[in-house]
Amino acid sequence: MTRQLFELTGTDPARRFSPFCWRSRMALAHKGLEAEIIPWRFTENERLAAHGGKSVPILLDGAATLTDSWDIALHLEQSYPDAPALFQGPPETYRFITAWTDTVLTAGVARLIVSDIVPLLGPKEAAYFTESREKRFGMPLAQVTAGREARLPEFRATLGPLRRTLTQQPFLGGATPDYADYIVFGSFMWARIVSPLPLLAADDAVFAWRDRLLDLYGGLARAVPALEA
Amino acid sequence: MTRQLFELTGTDPARRFSPFCWRSRMALAHKGLEAEIIPWRFTENERLAAHGGKSVPILLDGAATLTDSWDIALHLEQSYPDAPALFQGPPETYRFITAWTDTVLTAGVARLIVSDIVPLLGPKEAAYFTESREKRFGMPLAQVTAGREARLPEFRATLGPLRRTLTQQPFLGGATPDYADYIVFGSFMWARIVSPLPLLAADDAVFAWRDRLLDLYGGLARAVPALEA
Repeated sequence: MTRQLFELTGTDPARRFSPFCWRSRMALAHKGLEAEIIPWRFTENERLAAHGGKSVPILLDGAATLTDSWDIALHLEQSYPDAPALFQGPPETYRFITAWTDTVLTAGVARLIVSDIVPLLGPKEAAYFTESREKRFGMPLAQVTAGREARLPEFRATLGPLRRTLTQQPFLGGATPDYADYIVFGSFMWARIVSPLPLLAADDAVFAWRDRLLDLYGGLARAVPALEA
Repeated sequence: MTRQLFELTGTDPARRFSPFCWRSRMALAHKGLEAEIIPWRFTENERLAAHGGKSVPILLDGAATLTDSWDIALHLEQSYPDAPALFQGPPETYRFITAWTDTVLTAGVARLIVSDIVPLLGPKEAAYFTESREKRFGMPLAQVTAGREARLPEFRATLGPLRRTLTQQPFLGGATPDYADYIVFGSFMWARIVSPLPLLAADDAVFAWRDRLLDLYGGLARAVPALEA
């Protein structure tokens, strides 16, 4: 049976832009595993419900169905123990960086790029996305991202812990990348694919780290069409 | 030879308040190791230089001298491999939470409590501390902490990643504490000992976690005199 990963796209199936799907795609590559890309669009909920899921990524791997990026990582680690480890210690010790990424990084990126996503979507998905996100932010999406160039220094300051770590070692995992790198990288891939806004300055240690991630596994992530200038 | 740990105090040698010294004191306890407390005060630089150090903690352990909390943790892990592990994976995977603690947490705590440290110091140390910290902050210390009660919600919001992690598991290390817990806990001990300001609300998952840390190793940390209300 072919391994399959449901990944979020807009009208262009090549532009897979979900930060959470990127965690799983990089985790698969880390393990040396192929997985067919199953493009999925907002509002196609019944396609996920058929597998018992509510959001992407969903991984179908033989008899196993995993409906969440964290569970996918645990599954890959347990099912492919001879491939390079995603977690170099107990997965619990990766919870803090996951929480930081979800509450600080991804939330900060969203406030800079969320309005860029709408033009990438078909009419039905764009309507769903706009309504649900405007409800979440309590304002029009254009207003959420208004004045974003002026807010870039503030955003970049929130990357302090990441920057300090990456001046000490090439990857969050140490000398080589591990799942912590993929967790954080996913949010930068999200921005890179949907937005022309340059989140990172070229002389930032975080920029150099992102470049290293873009080069991994034959340039897997770099090959995806991006709007970043 | 007796194991010795140089720890920062003010006029009362029982009030050991350095966040970095607390990392090492908890790490020693985790390993089941005793170490004589060597009280050290600001400006006593020649006492550190005698051991090749510039700041506390300094650990003297047999023939080994370690002049930095990170090096102390690595030394304890290597020298006492049969005692419980401080690091459940490579130490490099603990760099991010260290960087977060140093750049976000400790910096945030300092802006709330730095002026409380002065009255705990003797005249000479108080003069040194005030001058060096006022230079760092670019303003009088009373001004740094002015209006702090009103800034508590903002500070508590920065604990989001910690709070989310600790609603998922009892310790940053998972089911049991590891060096990540001690890194973060040190900054809360610093505040607790020197300041009456209640940094944490009693219904916060971070408060409950701190309570668990205070109880560890026979209440080692709780036994230290504290100014927190």
